[in-house]
Amino acid sequence: MTSDENTVFVGNTKPTMNYVLAVITQFNRGTNEVAIKARGRAISRAVDVAEITRQRFLSDVVVKSIEIGTEQIESERGQSNVSAMTITLKK
Amino acid sequence: MTSDENTVFVGNTKPTMNYVLAVITQFNRGTNEVAIKARGRAISRAVDVAEITRQRFLSDVVVKSIEIGTEQIESERGQSNVSAMTITLKK
Repeated sequence: MTSDENTVFVGNTKPTMNYVLAVITQFNRGTNEVAIKARGRAISRAVDVAEITRQRFLSDVVVKSIEIGTEQIESERGQSNVSAMTITLKK
Repeated sequence: MTSDENTVFVGNTKPTMNYVLAVITQFNRGTNEVAIKARGRAISRAVDVAEITRQRFLSDVVVKSIEIGTEQIESERGQSNVSAMTITLKK
């Protein structure tokens, strides 16, 4: 099970490696699962984060599940839909 | 099983709805599975294509599997890694 404590929200503002480091830090704290969440354009980056974590740093980590969905967001132009993704990594 | 015949490659050049239409066309031809593939920045758009197809057009279609990986590409600056994703939709 994942909670906010072992969830990394990937955005577009920080460099990709910041999010990779956040994932590695969660695993090093002893958690067995980390959820990587992103919406919209940041989804591509979330995949980068998962792949870089697995391929370069934590080779014993596997992809447990990948879920996609649609979320509604409020913007200045009213309500709109945005795609969302959660990649759960497991040690 | 998916082959090139029921695979839609999502890029960054065409509008999202073109890819949605390509997926719908595959299903309307009688195939039971369509693979949506993308690399790099186009991954976010591939999720949009899957979600729009399911939520707006083909409500009987479900996500069968989502796979992520890393591919090597040749660019003018030499070899580099790029994230890749395949979303398989099933009727």
